[in-house]
Amino acid sequence: MEFTAQQIAELINGTVEGNKNQVIRDVSKIEEGRPETLTFLANPKYEQHIYNTDASVVIVNNSFKPEKPVKATLIRVEDAYQALARLLQMYESSLPKKTGIEQPSFIDSSASIGEFAYIGAFAYISEKAKIGNNAQIWPGAFIGEGVEIGDNTIIYSGTKVYKNCKIGNSCIIHAGAVVGSDGFGFAPGPDGDYQKIPQVGNVVIEEFVEIGANTTIDRATMGSTIIRKGAKIDNLVQIAHNVEVGSNTVIAAQTGVAGSTKIGKNCMFGGQVGIAGHLKVADQVKMAAQTGVAKSITKEGAVMMGSPAMDAMQYNKSYVMFRKLPAIYQQLQELEKKVSEK
Amino acid sequence: MEFTAQQIAELINGTVEGNKNQVIRDVSKIEEGRPETLTFLANPKYEQHIYNTDASVVIVNNSFKPEKPVKATLIRVEDAYQALARLLQMYESSLPKKTGIEQPSFIDSSASIGEFAYIGAFAYISEKAKIGNNAQIWPGAFIGEGVEIGDNTIIYSGTKVYKNCKIGNSCIIHAGAVVGSDGFGFAPGPDGDYQKIPQVGNVVIEEFVEIGANTTIDRATMGSTIIRKGAKIDNLVQIAHNVEVGSNTVIAAQTGVAGSTKIGKNCMFGGQVGIAGHLKVADQVKMAAQTGVAKSITKEGAVMMGSPAMDAMQYNKSYVMFRKLPAIYQQLQELEKKVSEK
Amino acid sequence: MEFTAQQIAELINGTVEGNKNQVIRDVSKIEEGRPETLTFLANPKYEQHIYNTDASVVIVNNSFKPEKPVKATLIRVEDAYQALARLLQMYESSLPKKTGIEQPSFIDSSASIGEFAYIGAFAYISEKAKIGNNAQIWPGAFIGEGVEIGDNTIIYSGTKVYKNCKIGNSCIIHAGAVVGSDGFGFAPGPDGDYQKIPQVGNVVIEEFVEIGANTTIDRATMGSTIIRKGAKIDNLVQIAHNVEVGSNTVIAAQTGVAGSTKIGKNCMFGGQVGIAGHLKVADQVKMAAQTGVAKSITKEGAVMMGSPAMDAMQYNKSYVMFRKLPAIYQQLQELEKKVSEK
Repeated sequence: MEFTAQQIAELINGTVEGNKNQVIRDVSKIEEGRPETLTFLANPKYEQHIYNTDASVVIVNNSFKPEKPVKATLIRVEDAYQALARLLQMYESSLPKKTGIEQPSFIDSSASIGEFAYIGAFAYISEKAKIGNNAQIWPGAFIGEGVEIGDNTIIYSGTKVYKNCKIGNSCIIHAGAVVGSDGFGFAPGPDGDYQKIPQVGNVVIEEFVEIGANTTIDRATMGSTIIRKGAKIDNLVQIAHNVEVGSNTVIAAQTGVAGSTKIGKNCMFGGQVGIAGHLKVADQVKMAAQTGVAKSITKEGAVMMGSPAMDAMQYNKSYVMFRKLPAIYQQLQELEKKVSEK
Repeated sequence: MEFTAQQIAELINGTVEGNKNQVIRDVSKIEEGRPETLTFLANPKYEQHIYNTDASVVIVNNSFKPEKPVKATLIRVEDAYQALARLLQMYESSLPKKTGIEQPSFIDSSASIGEFAYIGAFAYISEKAKIGNNAQIWPGAFIGEGVEIGDNTIIYSGTKVYKNCKIGNSCIIHAGAVVGSDGFGFAPGPDGDYQKIPQVGNVVIEEFVEIGANTTIDRATMGSTIIRKGAKIDNLVQIAHNVEVGSNTVIAAQTGVAGSTKIGKNCMFGGQVGIAGHLKVADQVKMAAQTGVAKSITKEGAVMMGSPAMDAMQYNKSYVMFRKLPAIYQQLQELEKKVSEK
Repeated sequence: MEFTAQQIAELINGTVEGNKNQVIRDVSKIEEGRPETLTFLANPKYEQHIYNTDASVVIVNNSFKPEKPVKATLIRVEDAYQALARLLQMYESSLPKKTGIEQPSFIDSSASIGEFAYIGAFAYISEKAKIGNNAQIWPGAFIGEGVEIGDNTIIYSGTKVYKNCKIGNSCIIHAGAVVGSDGFGFAPGPDGDYQKIPQVGNVVIEEFVEIGANTTIDRATMGSTIIRKGAKIDNLVQIAHNVEVGSNTVIAAQTGVAGSTKIGKNCMFGGQVGIAGHLKVADQVKMAAQTGVAKSITKEGAVMMGSPAMDAMQYNKSYVMFRKLPAIYQQLQELEKKVSEK
């Protein structure tokens, strides 16, 4: 690719400050900027780098006020991060897309494949499965019996979708993810052994959802495990049976949600969070990484931390004291002594 | 399917309270009950739902005493959860089962395949592997050299079993699980680099074991990593080299057990538990989610919590105080002042 | 195999103490030693077993001084663990190695395959991919467009490598690992929904790296996620976009490193560690299992523990007090009462 700063600015509704004809040929991170590349500054933590980056063009927020001279040409926009997103999306959509059916693949005669879909080699499409228009099923993916994959959805290599699960339009499921494995349900027997509870429900993933690599989403015991529209789930996350994840909720890597818990919309969970089963989490709740939740969270927009979880500010205050505990203990002993001696 | 309440009651040794001829066509969760469906009430937490569920028939414990009128027909049994398990098992076993060898698959000429086994397309059966009778090897699974898979065992799509591992009868291994990858063993060299210790042992999984999706079980350095009869292991669990998991022990998702640790039988671990290497955990030990274990647990039936782990009741008492730490600190300072001023 | 103690000693530069002609046919762990097997003693925790092991030959450190009579023949070496590593490596390299291209596999006509490489059945080699000499691509692995795999590197079954990633020489990538999946990057929109930031960077893995089963390493937003020479990463680890892991750093299972964090060389992290994004971790830093890191660690060789992380010794001191908190609280209340009554 080759563009001028002015051409880029027009694509993202920005204004150029500097050399309008500056050519750019690639993108780079601001701290690793190279000549003739385009970069961006959104996180203020990285502002220092704009003063000596070798990138030729930097997209910045309209509100950005340089504190020192900037060598690079700037493109000012309302929201630099969003503008970058749009630009990279345009770039991605300009790349050739895979279509057609590669051989050898396995497509049951009762399955239906949408227009312009891609079925990679070694992909397996089971009986009565339906693959949407423009959908991509990458090599080695497994699509179970009766599964529905929506239009424009991408199922990357080696993803496994068990029978009867439904994945909506415009989703992305990354490599190695497992959708619809059995929920973890056993009835204890008299001798300490366990009887399996067959899991006869499914998983329903609504549209615009992204699921990370090697993430697992179990099918419901009965009914559906549900991931609502626009939710974004990172790698190696565990979603247990009958969980519901609300719309536009974002869950970072290695988080686990136990069975039947209902999570609100627009929540944000850090990595390695654990949420026990049969709970409710309100809308817009935020959780710090490694938070452990043992009770329902009813307050919208609560910010939680610790295990078991409490209000994050309260946790931090207690943790400051935790660090001081040996000193507190000593102070108490000395005080005790002092009082006794009085 | 279509049954009457009376027919269901006969299958599970129950007694009908209400309309014996009530037709049911599906199952549902009590809180999402629909007409002409069968549901159950076992967890008292869900009792409120029985008074307004639209499900037509509810399986309950003999001991259940309604506190308000119940619209649905009841089937009373000794243990509602067990009865449900049995019923769903009957349903599952009535479904048609896959058998035969799909093409293209790869079966080494020295491998042996049991009667009525299913080998899915793109499955790979290595030299000298033995697949039991009625076993199912789903599409894209990899069965290494010399591996033995027992009768009636199901290996779901994309599961990988490295060479020489043994999986017993009537096991279920979910999609994406890896059995027999190298244990994490390196000898530190003089320059800070590491020499790999080849892992020449294997993994032995006894009968009636269930292994979750994308779980990893490493082969032993020498000897065997062992999962005993009836153990149930959830998704994304890590079992390191030379670990032994006792019979009927239940391990929830994202738990990790480090090398050479021996875990007793009938234990129950919550999610995201971590257990250090070279330890012993006694029988019937319970661990709360996110517990971190750094020392052996010798007391049978101990209930553990925290990181590092302690007795759960003690942990909870200390944690109540942790929440109060800022107030405790302040009280101490004020007391100090008071004493000084006296 | 069949060797005498003397033959083994010569291979590892050791001296025999006992029966030079003792035959060994296999290896075993010292606590499970069987006659005619070779074992080793390196970890002093296992010393007790040397006095009653049934193994016929034990490799020990030159410095080992038995406290009781030892029945087995000893081979004394400088470093028993290293000697074992070397011995097992010799054994492994004596096994026949897979080479050649199995059918059916999918190799794009623009891909290049090195000499003596192995391409298993159902492996997929995309356009312009380059597979090194003696490299092994096991069945069902997916190698994306433009990917480079170095000489002697082993990619186990079902591993997925997304487009443009580079894996160096002499690496081992275990089954189910995902290299190059999209980083988790979204720009928040005005309605609480999210716009995907396409991830146009890649992953670069240098030589002598080992990556565990089902581990996920995301591609960079721009630039590269980098795993430096000799790093060893265990199973189910999450490495986010634009992370850098330093040379010879060892990361145990289920650890997660968030985006753009730079980790030094020769670090050692226990299992289930979590490290937040945009941080720096100095060289030779050690972290206890389950440590949670929220701030950069600038001190070389620091030993960290807790969540949020602090110096491990300090954490342990505070944790001793945490255990005593109910007693401390009571002491404080009694003291308060005493002071009030004076």
